[in-house]
This record gives sequence, C-alpha cells and structure tokens, in this order.
Amino acid sequence: MEHLADVLFDLFVLLLATKVGDELFKRLGQPAMVGEILAGVIVGPAVLGWYSITAETALFAQIGAVLLLFEVGVRTRVGDLLRVGPTAIAVATLGVALPFAGGYLVGVLLDLPLEGRVFLAAALTATSVAITSRALNQAGALGSLSGRVVLGAAVIDDVLAMLIVGVAVGMATGGVEGGTLLLTVGLAAAFIVIVVVAGTGLLRRHRSLLTEPRFAETPFLPGMILMLGLAAISAAIGLASIIGAFLAGMVVGESAERDALEKETAPVAAFFTPFFFGFVGAQIDLSVFGSPQTIVLLAGVTVLAVVGKFLGAFLGAIRLGRSRAALVGWAMVPRGEVEIIVAGLALTSGAFGSDLYVVVVAMVLITSLVVPPLLPALVRRAEPEAG
Amino acid sequence: MEHLADVLFDLFVLLLATKVGDELFKRLGQPAMVGEILAGVIVGPAVLGWYSITAETALFAQIGAVLLLFEVGVRTRVGDLLRVGPTAIAVATLGVALPFAGGYLVGVLLDLPLEGRVFLAAALTATSVAITSRALNQAGALGSLSGRVVLGAAVIDDVLAMLIVGVAVGMATGGVEGGTLLLTVGLAAAFIVIVVVAGTGLLRRHRSLLTEPRFAETPFLPGMILMLGLAAISAAIGLASIIGAFLAGMVVGESAERDALEKETAPVAAFFTPFFFGFVGAQIDLSVFGSPQTIVLLAGVTVLAVVGKFLGAFLGAIRLGRSRAALVGWAMVPRGEVEIIVAGLALTSGAFGSDLYVVVVAMVLITSLVVPPLLPALVRRAEPEAG
Repeated sequence: MEHLADVLFDLFVLLLATKVGDELFKRLGQPAMVGEILAGVIVGPAVLGWYSITAETALFAQIGAVLLLFEVGVRTRVGDLLRVGPTAIAVATLGVALPFAGGYLVGVLLDLPLEGRVFLAAALTATSVAITSRALNQAGALGSLSGRVVLGAAVIDDVLAMLIVGVAVGMATGGVEGGTLLLTVGLAAAFIVIVVVAGTGLLRRHRSLLTEPRFAETPFLPGMILMLGLAAISAAIGLASIIGAFLAGMVVGESAERDALEKETAPVAAFFTPFFFGFVGAQIDLSVFGSPQTIVLLAGVTVLAVVGKFLGAFLGAIRLGRSRAALVGWAMVPRGEVEIIVAGLALTSGAFGSDLYVVVVAMVLITSLVVPPLLPALVRRAEPEAG
Repeated sequence: MEHLADVLFDLFVLLLATKVGDELFKRLGQPAMVGEILAGVIVGPAVLGWYSITAETALFAQIGAVLLLFEVGVRTRVGDLLRVGPTAIAVATLGVALPFAGGYLVGVLLDLPLEGRVFLAAALTATSVAITSRALNQAGALGSLSGRVVLGAAVIDDVLAMLIVGVAVGMATGGVEGGTLLLTVGLAAAFIVIVVVAGTGLLRRHRSLLTEPRFAETPFLPGMILMLGLAAISAAIGLASIIGAFLAGMVVGESAERDALEKETAPVAAFFTPFFFGFVGAQIDLSVFGSPQTIVLLAGVTVLAVVGKFLGAFLGAIRLGRSRAALVGWAMVPRGEVEIIVAGLALTSGAFGSDLYVVVVAMVLITSLVVPPLLPALVRRAEPEAG
C-alpha cells in the first residue's frame, strides 16, 4: 500500500514536471521534448531528487519509448517510402552513412569495444521526423519539393536506424564475432521484411481483421496487442523492442482504419511519452560536465552529427540545385527520440558509460534547439514561393 | 534487456487473453468483465502459467483500477446526485446498509478481526453502474422512472462505498482503536468533501483552467495529473488510492470539457483495465474450491449479497409501488469492479486470506451473470410502456 503511494507519487511528480517543462518551452517556441527532458533533470536525482528511478518508473519510460516508435511507425507509409523516389533515398542513405562513419571513427578514437562503436554510430544517424516536420511547417515549406524530400528521407532513415539498432543490440547481447554479426544483420533485416510484407499483405487481404472483433470498435486495441507482441518477440530474438513496436505501427498504419487508430493512440502516447523523456532527464548525471574531456567530446560529437548529416543529405540532394540541397541538408540535422532511445539501450547494455549517454542526449538537445531557427532563411532562398 | 522482453511478453499474453475472453463473452451476450477475469484465471498461475505476477504487471493492474475509478468519477455528476431525490437516496442507503450489516455479521461468524469484517462488509455494498446500466438499457428501461432511480442510487452507493473503503483501508493501515477509527472516518469524509467542494468550485470560477495550458489541447492530461496526484495523496494519508482517482474524475467531470475528456480517457482506460481484470483472475487460487467450507461460504456470501441488496433497495423504493420496487431491487443486485478492487485491497493488506478473496470475486461473477437475464420480465411488469 505504501509502496503504491510512492509509485503514484513518482509518476505524478514526473508527469506534472514534464508538462510544466513542455508548457514553458512551447511558450518560448521551442520543442516540447527539450522542456520535458530538462524537467526530468530538475526533479530527478541530479537536482531535486523528488523522482526516483525504480523498476516501475523505468517500465513506464520503456512503454513510453515503445509507444513513441509505434506512433512513428503508424505515420510511416510503405507506399510513401516507395514513391518519394531516388532523391529522398539518396538523401537518407548518405545522411545516415556519413554520421555513421563519423560516429564509428570517434568510437575507435575513444577505444570503445566494437558494439560501443556501433551504438555510437547508430546514435547519430536518424533525423527526428517530429522536430524537422514542425520546423518545416513553421517555415511554410512542408509541402514544397524540398520539404517532401526531407520528410521522405527522414522516414527512410528511421527504417535504416532501426536496422542499425537491431545490429547493435544483437552485438551487445549475442557477441561480436564475424559469424554472429552476419547472423544478426540477417536476422534484423529478415524480421523487418517478413513483418512488413506478411503484415501488410494480410491486412490487404482481410480488410476487416482489425475491426471485426467485438471487443473493440476501432483497431486501437488490436494494434496494442500487435505492438506488445512484436515488441516482445523482437526483444526475445535479441533485437530492440522498439523495432517490433515500429513495425507493428507500420503494419497497422497501412490499414484502412489508420485515422481512427491514430486518434485513439494519441492520448495513450501523450500519457506515456512524458515518462520516457522525463526518465531520460532523470538519468542524466550532471557531474560529467565537470570534466573538460566530456565537454570536448560533446563538442566533437555535436559538430560531427551536424556536419556529417548536413554533408550527406546535401550530396544526396545536389541534383535539386545548391540552395535546395542546402535547405534539405540543414533540415535533416535535428535529432530526436531515436538517438535518445539508442543511447538508453547502450547505457543499459553497458556499451556506453554515463558520460557518452549524457553526450548523446545533450547533442540531441543542441541540434533540436539550434537548427530550426536558421531554417526560414534557407527556405526563402531555396523555395521562394513557399512560406 | 531480457527482463524487458519478459515484461512485454506478460503484458502481451494478458492483453491478448483478456480480449479473447471479452470477445467470447460479448458474443454470448454476457459481461466482458467476466470473460476478462476468466481469461486471467486460465493464462495465470492457476492453469497455464503463461502470465506471472510481478511488480510490473501488478503496477499495470493497479493503474487499471485507478483509471477505472477515475472513469466512474467522470461519469458521476454532482448535480445528478443532488437531483435524483429522496427515493434514490433511500434506495442507495438501505441498499448499502443491509449487505454491509450482513457482511459484518459473516465476518463475526468467521471470527475475522475488525478490519477484516469491515472489508468483507464493504465488499458487498456497491452496485456495478456499468453492468446494471447495460442490462437496463438492453431491457429498454434505462430512461424509465425505475431506471433513473437505479442509476442515481448506483452512483450514490459508489460514493458511500468509497467512504467505507476509506475507513477499511485506514483501519488496516492505522489500527482499529476507537479514536483512530473515528479519525479515519472523519479523514475520509473530509477528504471527499474538501476535494469535491474545492475542486468543482475552482473549476466553476476558472472555466479554462483545464484547457489553458498549451501542453494539452484537451483537459485529458491535466486530468491525468490530477488523478495521479489525488491518488497518491489519498494513498499517502492512509485511504485507498482509488478514492483519490474517483474524486479526481468527479471534479474534472464537472468541467465544461467533460465530453472531450471522456473521449480521450476511453482509449487509455481501455488499454489499462484489461490488465486489472486479468490480474484479478491470475490471483485466483482455484484450489480453494476443493474445500467444502469455501463452497458453503461462497453460497452464503452470494445469497447475502443478493438478498441484502434486493431487500434494502426494495424497501427504499417501496413508495413507487411493489412492482417498481421489485425491479429497482433486482436491478441493484449486480456487483462489479468496486467489490473486486476492495477484495484486492483486503488481500494485499492481509485482512483477507486467498479463500475470502476468491469468494468475493466469484460472488461478483455470479451476480453479474445471473441477475441481468431476469430483468426483462420485471421491466414488463413494472414499466409496461418501456422496452
């Protein structure tokens, strides 16, 4: 009984604090995610100590991450991915490859073991669809050619990031010998392809599969069952649970009931995700900033993340002309939830120390704060009819 | 990582199983709750052992109970309670008093300690608003005079049950001396009155309090924050967390944004409550039915619950004439979530052994299955123009 009171209090404090942080940052015109993470830092053990990391609060955070990726999956349309064409694919691939290579090299310089290098590389790859699409929307360029390329590429790089994360987690749990590594890559790729092909095929043949059950008037509960099931399977076969959640979202997002599903998933995700971002903040150990090495590392990783992504995406979009390529490159820079989840996985598996975890989270906060304000100028040059 | 896979698997199994149970019982025209509980029995330790009771699955069950009572609170309008008039109040009061007295006497016969007697008495008091309103609706009598009296009385007896539960939990945690008992009764009553009066007053003066924050477009997240906060406070002052959740629901249900709130709370509650009912089933130890004493106890408690509630409600409604009073009495008999939650609290606090817990849950299942089919005949006699 008293234990339940403690858990309820932790959840209350974290939800209240993150929503106050969200409120302040929204009023300042900044991403809510940053406010939620900073609120977690303040009420967490680093500052006030009102919120404690327990099995229960960690569970809410993990379910928050699972739901976050499920939502990203729902918004990812397989058809869109196939339609956006070669430019978006080039932007996504080069925009993933360059930061990945850079992260891997930093890992070598830091003398990390192989799985640590792959985690660090993975933690620099994915553009935040949420942050970049809001920034493009505010700049009036969401519907422009550049905007569509950026969105397509940002979604594709989520899929690529999922594949890399699958490999990194597989290496952390299964070992890093050549054979095992190949097996993990194959397993991750096969899991993604099988689930997407079989799942979307099944839903296309049996359109009412999600709405037939009488226990639900909408596909929301069948979607949650699929999400938990695929998340459990992907965790059990040594991939990350978020991969299964992402794929579950993608599969049900292909159904005709997509809108109803999105509408009902929204409040559940709105309830859980603050616990995830607050938990991320609560895990931050501020003392690492006392070391000059960490500051240097943060500066290096951030520059690498910005330059690598910009350059890769710029080169991928160069056929659209220099000003559009510059807009696309810059719009691809903001990082977000995927990086933070990857850093968390690396921290729990022991591949990251708390300094690298903090560095990746701080890099995400910096890119998501610094990049959007500079977008409007690039939009005016590249897409003068927009905005 | 592996631990997360286990937790996700437990949640997946329980959600899938409860929804299959829900589906089967809905197709049979029976309450979904019964199907969910039986599914929990089957996948739980008693039969298949696919689902295990852990801190994490217990947390989801508890949050499910908190959300269930929050939803009941949202649907409870203070104005309705004041309007339904003396008949509904008489039905509620007598319909609570008689089963309470009977349960207390059984507790004396079983030689239970004082808090065990109060828990057993509390576990017989509240009519299930959900089950009775669905049954009345199917019989076409929800809008009739009898139907309105039943609904008003069922809601009032939830408030009375909350008060009794507050006292029972207070006694279980704080001791049972005369002074402490009075203090607990006073505390529970004061908490209910203060929250409802101050909360609804505040929302009446500041109508936009729930929608002003930019972190939410609807009052849903402010409602969740209030729910967790009041649940934590009531657990911390030694009442049950569900009381705070119920009051939070009542307060925000008074706001102008009630419909938006209900719409967004529904998917979150639909996600969590199956974990509660499934957990209830998983906690059932089938071996207690091997003892003839338990069967006798179950028969006695069930007869007492049915006769006590029927007689009390019948007497309370007698001024409406005998046939209406009989309809009201019978419609008040089905028990539901409140009883089950009370039994769970009694089990965790040690006031109930697992036999009494199983007896109360089985009594709830029996009343909710047996009572509704006999309603239509009573409706035809009492409200011939209905149905």
